[in-house]
Amino acid sequence: MLGRVWRLLVGAPLSTRRARHERLSVLLALPVLTADAISSAAYGPEEMTMVLWAAGEAGLSLAFPISLAIVALLFIVVFSYRQTVYAYPQGGGAFTVAHENLGEFWGLMAAAALLIGYVLTVAVSIAAGVNAMVSAIPALLPYRVLLNVLFIAFMTLINLRGVRESGAVFAPPTYGFVLTFALLILLGLWRGFTGDIDPAPYPPYFGETTTLSFALIVMAFARGCSALTGVEAISNGVQVFKAPESRNAATTLLLLAFILSGLVMGITYTASHFHIVPRVENGEIVETLTSRLARTVLEGTPLEWFYYVVQIATTAILVLAANTAYVDFPRLSSILANARYAPRQLANLGDRLVFNNGILLLGALSALLVIYFRGDTHTLIPLYAVGVFISFTLSQAGMARRFLRVRPPRWQIKMMVNGFGSLVTCIVFLTQLIVNFRYGAWITLVAIGILIYLMYRVHGHYTDIRTQLRPEGYHAPTSPPRHRVLVLVPGVHRGVLNAIDYARQIAPPEHIEALHINVDPRPPAIYRRVLRRTKNEETMLQLVTPAAEKLQREWQHYVPDIPLRIIESEHRSLIEPIEDYIDELIEREQLDQLTVIIPEFYPKRWWHHLLHNQSAWMLRLALMRKPKVVVTTVRYFLER
Amino acid sequence: MLGRVWRLLVGAPLSTRRARHERLSVLLALPVLTADAISSAAYGPEEMTMVLWAAGEAGLSLAFPISLAIVALLFIVVFSYRQTVYAYPQGGGAFTVAHENLGEFWGLMAAAALLIGYVLTVAVSIAAGVNAMVSAIPALLPYRVLLNVLFIAFMTLINLRGVRESGAVFAPPTYGFVLTFALLILLGLWRGFTGDIDPAPYPPYFGETTTLSFALIVMAFARGCSALTGVEAISNGVQVFKAPESRNAATTLLLLAFILSGLVMGITYTASHFHIVPRVENGEIVETLTSRLARTVLEGTPLEWFYYVVQIATTAILVLAANTAYVDFPRLSSILANARYAPRQLANLGDRLVFNNGILLLGALSALLVIYFRGDTHTLIPLYAVGVFISFTLSQAGMARRFLRVRPPRWQIKMMVNGFGSLVTCIVFLTQLIVNFRYGAWITLVAIGILIYLMYRVHGHYTDIRTQLRPEGYHAPTSPPRHRVLVLVPGVHRGVLNAIDYARQIAPPEHIEALHINVDPRPPAIYRRVLRRTKNEETMLQLVTPAAEKLQREWQHYVPDIPLRIIESEHRSLIEPIEDYIDELIEREQLDQLTVIIPEFYPKRWWHHLLHNQSAWMLRLALMRKPKVVVTTVRYFLER
Repeated sequence: MLGRVWRLLVGAPLSTRRARHERLSVLLALPVLTADAISSAAYGPEEMTMVLWAAGEAGLSLAFPISLAIVALLFIVVFSYRQTVYAYPQGGGAFTVAHENLGEFWGLMAAAALLIGYVLTVAVSIAAGVNAMVSAIPALLPYRVLLNVLFIAFMTLINLRGVRESGAVFAPPTYGFVLTFALLILLGLWRGFTGDIDPAPYPPYFGETTTLSFALIVMAFARGCSALTGVEAISNGVQVFKAPESRNAATTLLLLAFILSGLVMGITYTASHFHIVPRVENGEIVETLTSRLARTVLEGTPLEWFYYVVQIATTAILVLAANTAYVDFPRLSSILANARYAPRQLANLGDRLVFNNGILLLGALSALLVIYFRGDTHTLIPLYAVGVFISFTLSQAGMARRFLRVRPPRWQIKMMVNGFGSLVTCIVFLTQLIVNFRYGAWITLVAIGILIYLMYRVHGHYTDIRTQLRPEGYHAPTSPPRHRVLVLVPGVHRGVLNAIDYARQIAPPEHIEALHINVDPRPPAIYRRVLRRTKNEETMLQLVTPAAEKLQREWQHYVPDIPLRIIESEHRSLIEPIEDYIDELIEREQLDQLTVIIPEFYPKRWWHHLLHNQSAWMLRLALMRKPKVVVTTVRYFLER
Repeated sequence: MLGRVWRLLVGAPLSTRRARHERLSVLLALPVLTADAISSAAYGPEEMTMVLWAAGEAGLSLAFPISLAIVALLFIVVFSYRQTVYAYPQGGGAFTVAHENLGEFWGLMAAAALLIGYVLTVAVSIAAGVNAMVSAIPALLPYRVLLNVLFIAFMTLINLRGVRESGAVFAPPTYGFVLTFALLILLGLWRGFTGDIDPAPYPPYFGETTTLSFALIVMAFARGCSALTGVEAISNGVQVFKAPESRNAATTLLLLAFILSGLVMGITYTASHFHIVPRVENGEIVETLTSRLARTVLEGTPLEWFYYVVQIATTAILVLAANTAYVDFPRLSSILANARYAPRQLANLGDRLVFNNGILLLGALSALLVIYFRGDTHTLIPLYAVGVFISFTLSQAGMARRFLRVRPPRWQIKMMVNGFGSLVTCIVFLTQLIVNFRYGAWITLVAIGILIYLMYRVHGHYTDIRTQLRPEGYHAPTSPPRHRVLVLVPGVHRGVLNAIDYARQIAPPEHIEALHINVDPRPPAIYRRVLRRTKNEETMLQLVTPAAEKLQREWQHYVPDIPLRIIESEHRSLIEPIEDYIDELIEREQLDQLTVIIPEFYPKRWWHHLLHNQSAWMLRLALMRKPKVVVTTVRYFLER
């Protein structure tokens, strides 16, 4: 029944032969690979503004200059990555590059930072997308967390079905978002220069104000750097491009740099020109910066309906950004699992050609994050950027090391480009760590540390198992092993007789015995009388109760050739006396192997299972820890 | 590990021989059997007051007269039950009496009403106990629900350890409560008559006020009848008394009637004299009526510290009242389970001589109730009383019917007493149902209906299984059945070779075969080349990939005498191809029985289990539904 629900949700299985890749032109690959990066423009400037706002107008007047610094950083990162896509035409994610060039430890650190980054990508993107919705429809505000969870559930579901990362699906929302905001910014600039709108004074800061300080500026820069998240996706997906793959990828990187910097600068400039800040209630953003911006720019024009286009485009690209993580997280974890750094379950390609377990894990973790942080992007961002800059740094450092090793033509310049990129991103990482440490960056750092430790442990375990299981030196046993069969007998009924029939097939009758444990808690009258007479506990427990006597008689009638042993259970427990008897039997008969047969009946309807003693299940669990014992359940199928 | 935690919490197992009963004198049995009933005085008058308050002073002036009606009802019920304890010296709970005298349906209805009543007893008593605490320490108010859950968890735990219902434990809180309130009431009466305290005017009603109407009076009476809950416990526990059991039980019933009526009348009278109502905030009681009463009476005297004694005594008796349900619920469900009306798991006497599953079930259900109703007695009471009066009615009706049938001396008068009792409680039940219907009584009614239906279904199922499993007419198969062994092979390693060794013990080599499913999702180059050349899908799937060829070679080296079949899985799933092959094998070889051996390795540490494919587990689940197939897991124990 569960299987049918699953099929209905995720669809019929797909054949392995369907696993093909489309090759995309630059114009179609751009939306697929950059939705994540471009969508960061929806929250990067906002985060910067939230920090500067604390210092009032003096602080906010620095927003645009700081955005220029962020853009400069973006170009440095992009030029670094352009060299990566040439060096790794098969795709060079941070894990691959760092692992290959810097060694296992740095590779695992990059992998850990990326995995955590993907979880945060989903959480932040979905939270920001929901914020865009809530800004447009304030009635949804009380359901923010619920909406976040529903979006994540939806993304998980469609990714379990298998989403083709097709240009046709990604192009409209991505280009739509870019065009919409280009229009909005241009209109804003025009209305600003013509003096059509008078900037209102800044609303007061929602918290405790502070004076403008260097620390505040650094923090604003660090938070604003969240606009750079997602840039690495292109280096991961080089093989998606049509030939010449590397050149097309490099072109796309440059295009991304221009688009993203245009958006970041444009949004920051117009927002500070009109004195726009997010609307905050009770310390939480209830209307985003871009929503306020759109309302202000469009107010009083015949284009007011365009506001809804802006919000829909924003939500759409943010949801796509989350989708990028849904593709990359399971892919990276399957690479790690195949390299034996992660549990094998993550390596299984499901029957819809997607890595089910990775998708489910990502969905669960990001849902926990949005629930815990109540869908608040502002508190999630400090956790996010720090991990992204670790992978930037390691990826560039790996490239620099590679140029030093491989020494292609003009390697000195190339090495310097990546070396410089690595240095700059490392400085930004340290900045992020320091200013955001107590706002959550420590969580990411601790999580990365734990993840690296776990990956090492898992790798050690798998390597160890491999050694232990090696078949070399195996020889079949020379003398026939001593094997006996023990049938557990709850009573004389069809299910038990069926189990005896089975036992006869796997061993001769003289190697079979039966065992019954009497757990009846009510000592019958005769038993109590004996109890009063004898003081010797041992004697008493050996006594056979009338119920046991009746069972023995019945047994003799149906199975005369196999002995039944009856043991009284002093504590009414079933499992311990069986375990004790098995140990004794193996010892006494010097057995190499004992098959324990547990008879069960298999009811017709699923709810009937609930009505039968779960003792067979508990028994299996207890006996499976015993060496030399093989547990076999023989089922008798009921007809109605 | 889990087992060790369990032992630490519940203690070492107890021998069956420890299951003895103490016999108690009237003075010691009274607290054990009446704590539940007496504690009802803590919430009964309060509930009545809450209703009358809506009609202001006019309404509240009727509190005392209505309490007289409740006391009259109490005496009618008690006189009825006095006849029950004489007729059933072994204990005559409502289920026993109704089942024996009115038949299966009414018996089950009484059982359902009782079971639900016990769950509500725990919920209401614990909630009222927590209210008493919160009244004394208002700082605890925000943690009300948490406190409720903690109390229930605590009660569940100590009952899993096994609580002796000893008079020594129950006497101090029960008598303490009675004495404390007797003192409080007497002091109140004295200060009232001497005019020492001036009654303040009533505080305004927290909700919408109404005028005094007949409906309101009836509702106040109905809610006040919650003071009668728990009276039936004595009839259940007749065997607890020293001889003469029945007479002692009857005496105790009469004592209970006097004590409880004294408390109800006393509390109601003094409360209305001093114009005391509970303190309500946001529609929820934040200070109970008895707490307000104690504060008022003790205010300005040197006895102010006595207030805390009152609150502690109230909490203590309410917790004991919940304990009564913890004893009776598992006992009744085990009786039902032994009569095959409830799942068998409820009949198992655990190794601490208590019915573990019943205790856990009661704890879970009552915890859900207090969480859902946020520990608010006022909303729980309407669900509670209606069930209690169903069992009162059925128990008395059963007695009346019994006298008609058995006809002991003076049966006419006895029958009339019970008949009258039954009639009155039935009228009260109908009243409860009507006035409380939309306040939650419908929930109880629906739950009782569902429970009756389930009990019938469960009974039908067990009876059916019994018939199907009857061994009569069984004959051992005459010709030796056709049996084969199939070993599933994930690869060639020690675990698999170990499984092959086992297979050789249960069948000759010519009856064994091995099966490998190739789920490798990446078609290797050679395979793809072939794919391009041939259009025939069937041919393609028959092709053996290089990986499979290598496996086959290795297999031949280690296990030359058993054939290995390799099947390519088109959808990368493991289970379906195995199922298909098994079906085909059974069909082809006309098998009567097929043993499927699943090799597994058993890691040393528990967390290692998480790192291995759960496919063996999924396979067992899938194959266990197949008739003729016996699944055997052969474990290879890893050394480190």
